[in-house]
Amino acid sequence: MLVLNEIQPKEIVPGYNARFIHTDNMTFAYWDVKAGYTLPEHSHMHEQVCNILEGVFTLVVNGVEHVLEPGKVVVIPAHVKHFGTSVTDCKLLDVFYPIREDYKNLP
Amino acid sequence: MLVLNEIQPKEIVPGYNARFIHTDNMTFAYWDVKAGYTLPEHSHMHEQVCNILEGVFTLVVNGVEHVLEPGKVVVIPAHVKHFGTSVTDCKLLDVFYPIREDYKNLP
Repeated sequence: MLVLNEIQPKEIVPGYNARFIHTDNMTFAYWDVKAGYTLPEHSHMHEQVCNILEGVFTLVVNGVEHVLEPGKVVVIPAHVKHFGTSVTDCKLLDVFYPIREDYKNLP
Repeated sequence: MLVLNEIQPKEIVPGYNARFIHTDNMTFAYWDVKAGYTLPEHSHMHEQVCNILEGVFTLVVNGVEHVLEPGKVVVIPAHVKHFGTSVTDCKLLDVFYPIREDYKNLP
């Protein structure tokens, strides 16, 4: 069993701290995001599923804005551009397939 | 964007109702579990990651018991036997790779 609080968080971009779990095939990113920060637009070859556990987050996928609150989920297909902004402090869970080797290899 | 409350839940075994999202490669099962129900021991070729969002759930993986509460995560490798019991009413999020075709093809 993994205890998230025992995993060292890493600040990926300002305001965005993540704890990562890498399994055989997937990466789980448990984000603590401070209110009012934007993750710039990007895309990747990984399929991504964004779950919001606490707070409000606006996620723009391929130019379409989604206002995420708990109980709402966005599936981002591989290679699709997306960016987001935290409206409040947030807890997000992003799941990626395949593994995010870039996150796995962070110092 | 998907709204979980708009997805029809399915009772997989007594006490265990799930809403499913199937992506290109993964299955997400959002479970509402009533207190005091056991999911019998089973295994499958899918890797599984069990997240608990609310409540307390005991999960036994390969004979080892884990008491899950929010902030704790269990990774179940492919083909490993597991079963679990809800101590309280629970909300669980299980993520599977590859897709659970059995769940996808439920009537």
